[in-house]
Amino acid sequence: MEPNLQELKTRLAQVNDLQSASALLHWDQATYMPPGGAEARGRQLSTLNRLAHEMFTNEKIGSLLDELKPWEDSLPADSDDAALIRVTRREWQRAIQVPSEFEARLTDHLSVAYQAWTEARPDNDWKRVEPLLEKTLELSRELANFFPGYDHIADPLINFSDEGMKAESVKVVFAQLRSELVPLVEAIAQRPAVDVEKLNGHFPEAAQMAFAEDVIKRFGYDFTRGRQDKTPHPFMTKFSLGDVRITTRSNEADLQELLFSTLHEAGHALYEQGIEGGYEATPLAGGTSSGVHESQSRLWENLVGRSCAFWQHEYPALQNVFPSLQSVSLEEWYRAINRVQRSLIRTDADEVTYNLHVMIRFDLELALLEGTLAVRDLPEAWRARYQEDLGIAAPDDRDGVLQDVHWFGGTIGGAFQGYTLGNLLSAQFFDCATRVHPEIPQQIGRGEFATLHNWLRDNIYRHGSKWTAPELIERVTGGPLSIKPYIAYLRRKYGEIYGL
Amino acid sequence: MEPNLQELKTRLAQVNDLQSASALLHWDQATYMPPGGAEARGRQLSTLNRLAHEMFTNEKIGSLLDELKPWEDSLPADSDDAALIRVTRREWQRAIQVPSEFEARLTDHLSVAYQAWTEARPDNDWKRVEPLLEKTLELSRELANFFPGYDHIADPLINFSDEGMKAESVKVVFAQLRSELVPLVEAIAQRPAVDVEKLNGHFPEAAQMAFAEDVIKRFGYDFTRGRQDKTPHPFMTKFSLGDVRITTRSNEADLQELLFSTLHEAGHALYEQGIEGGYEATPLAGGTSSGVHESQSRLWENLVGRSCAFWQHEYPALQNVFPSLQSVSLEEWYRAINRVQRSLIRTDADEVTYNLHVMIRFDLELALLEGTLAVRDLPEAWRARYQEDLGIAAPDDRDGVLQDVHWFGGTIGGAFQGYTLGNLLSAQFFDCATRVHPEIPQQIGRGEFATLHNWLRDNIYRHGSKWTAPELIERVTGGPLSIKPYIAYLRRKYGEIYGL
Repeated sequence: MEPNLQELKTRLAQVNDLQSASALLHWDQATYMPPGGAEARGRQLSTLNRLAHEMFTNEKIGSLLDELKPWEDSLPADSDDAALIRVTRREWQRAIQVPSEFEARLTDHLSVAYQAWTEARPDNDWKRVEPLLEKTLELSRELANFFPGYDHIADPLINFSDEGMKAESVKVVFAQLRSELVPLVEAIAQRPAVDVEKLNGHFPEAAQMAFAEDVIKRFGYDFTRGRQDKTPHPFMTKFSLGDVRITTRSNEADLQELLFSTLHEAGHALYEQGIEGGYEATPLAGGTSSGVHESQSRLWENLVGRSCAFWQHEYPALQNVFPSLQSVSLEEWYRAINRVQRSLIRTDADEVTYNLHVMIRFDLELALLEGTLAVRDLPEAWRARYQEDLGIAAPDDRDGVLQDVHWFGGTIGGAFQGYTLGNLLSAQFFDCATRVHPEIPQQIGRGEFATLHNWLRDNIYRHGSKWTAPELIERVTGGPLSIKPYIAYLRRKYGEIYGL
Repeated sequence: MEPNLQELKTRLAQVNDLQSASALLHWDQATYMPPGGAEARGRQLSTLNRLAHEMFTNEKIGSLLDELKPWEDSLPADSDDAALIRVTRREWQRAIQVPSEFEARLTDHLSVAYQAWTEARPDNDWKRVEPLLEKTLELSRELANFFPGYDHIADPLINFSDEGMKAESVKVVFAQLRSELVPLVEAIAQRPAVDVEKLNGHFPEAAQMAFAEDVIKRFGYDFTRGRQDKTPHPFMTKFSLGDVRITTRSNEADLQELLFSTLHEAGHALYEQGIEGGYEATPLAGGTSSGVHESQSRLWENLVGRSCAFWQHEYPALQNVFPSLQSVSLEEWYRAINRVQRSLIRTDADEVTYNLHVMIRFDLELALLEGTLAVRDLPEAWRARYQEDLGIAAPDDRDGVLQDVHWFGGTIGGAFQGYTLGNLLSAQFFDCATRVHPEIPQQIGRGEFATLHNWLRDNIYRHGSKWTAPELIERVTGGPLSIKPYIAYLRRKYGEIYGL
């Protein structure tokens, strides 16, 4: 191997080791850490993150990248080595733009803001976090301004998570989508509401867990390279390509919570477990953007896990595990898990209204960053937009402006668009897969997922971050991001359920 | 605060953060990590350990220590700050003696040797590890030779874990002890064997766990600053003074395994949880020697947990949880859990014969290091010594020379003497506590442990590594290490059980 590339890889692996250790410290904090460990854990995370940042922004990495340039240029365009150098250079240039001093200041502030939020939300105490959020907004602007030359101040922040997207391009997509969704939601609202009362019951956690884990094992989630634990908020995390873990939460009165969160996080994990083994411990060994990542969680959760074909095969097994479902028909179950209703909480929202929740947040983020909305006016703006877009308003801030962690544990800007981009892409990718393999829906109806999983792995997962999201979408679908497959999917599915 | 001391503490905290992260990676590897995570985990641990060593041996720490010398000398002898500087200097001087290159070579070799042992032991395959052990012996000698001026080549290695002890001083203590133990074991062997058949039964793991955890909670183990998980080999580990964890293993056919391993590891954990909070993230925040650490695990496991008084209170509760014990009297139970017999496995040995197992290993270590015993002759030497000292010999190497991990996961030399020093100290410290508080045995008989725990915390735990073991023993007992209390304890207890 090119000696400079070898040295670069050695250095990147060390950075990755620190980042992986940091991820494990986070995972442990969320799963098993006793309360007494919290104080030191914060300090340990801060030390690891600081060291990882220092090691990555070391100028020796910059000079290695410079020295590798001629060799990189001599490689074929689809070379893995060229991609490694290209992606590393992009990440390195981004990282050195941000002074370590600022990184430390931001991390410390966000840890305070997050801690305050965990207490303010249950207490419905907006005033407690308001000044902290003002500081977060200021720091978010400061961060964006390390990347001058943008069209909109949110652009650098959006670009961090969804490379190649800007405020304007997201706005265009969202406006198209909105013009389709609003009348669809309206039409559904005119139809009789779906009855979900019959789904009430008592569903022991262990049985829920066993059922959900059996499903994701058949999806292709490899438990010898992962595991599932319980946390208050479900997430996926990775310590190496051989150790990709997910978490879930359970509600013994509601079957849907554990089940669909498991399918969702397993979708993220299938992506990471499917990455080319040779990318281990390099910047290529991760999903390419938040939108593409979310496309996989939503594909497995919704396009597979909330489909009629899927439940044709799985429902008898579910009824077997939970005999109270014997009185609920497959049809009733299918309609209940796909009920559309205007609701307050994003994470509980159905497929049709979900994106309206995202758009509200996206627009508010832009307004805050632009300065056209003041932090102190945010709760009221939140209520007004919910009233306008969804026809309901939260009785308090707990289920309003305080409901999502994102602005309290991270910067303002770039946090939400990926969810909707992911929904759009889930349908776009699924469409491609079924065009190539028209037998996929029938296979899902027989509880077989290998064709779908293999197609996704070969076309998306294995590439890790080799291609940016726009490049990947082009390579996989032959065109750019499009709302059409998603709208067609919603119209078809919900048209049938609601008899539109 | 003295600015140099502040800077020293900041640097030490960062080293500690890396070491704590490394400890968590180990804990996760032993508890929850899926098999696919193993390869990357080895690399991650190696990176963290190397960085911690580099940061600690940084010459800036040396110059800070030099600059702090005059101020340190001006402080009172029992000052915490003076102790911090003194102990840091000792550790730093030790660390810089060993080249990083050697550290890396040793770590890599031991990880190979350990891996080979995990497979060789079940396969009873001595030949597989023999060449690796030869290399370990060579590296152990090389390590010792970074500390020239010793009387015996084992001295530096013994000093690492039991500061202030040497091969000669350990030999003297062991010879005295041996001269007392051999006739005691002989006398017991002449008495009728204790019947343990009646203890057979089926004991569900969850009930065993609940009982054991209830006991250690009453000992004073704080579950808000720790937790217990299951591992193949029980251990105690610490990520901060607020997060001190223990592990255990269970055997549903044998009540003693989980119970006594829990009490043992809880003893180690009580020591760490009891350390002065102000020592957090410094070299003072840990037990002072392997002998003193083991004194606490053995004190709670044996002097408390295998005492007659303890079971007078606890046995009815145990019978309540496991009704099959209704047919076993307290007297029968007490005699069964204290049965003395010559056996093959150190970790299963009773209090009387246990130290003979340790002495065999200690003598063999010295012979290997001296070169008077060759690695290839070790299995035979092991068998011969077991025949001579315990009158039995293992039918194979699995339960002979391959039984302990120590020489395969660590160096040869210094690995075993701490177990026996700990037994001796457990009785010596317990004697002091009961001299000051003669009510302790009665309290134990009522299930009350606060007086004992408080005395241990005030006199031993809180000091962490402020005093070396010899200093601590002198301060607590008013004299040096002595075998007398331990021998008196064994004679009294086993004289009564066996009617000697």
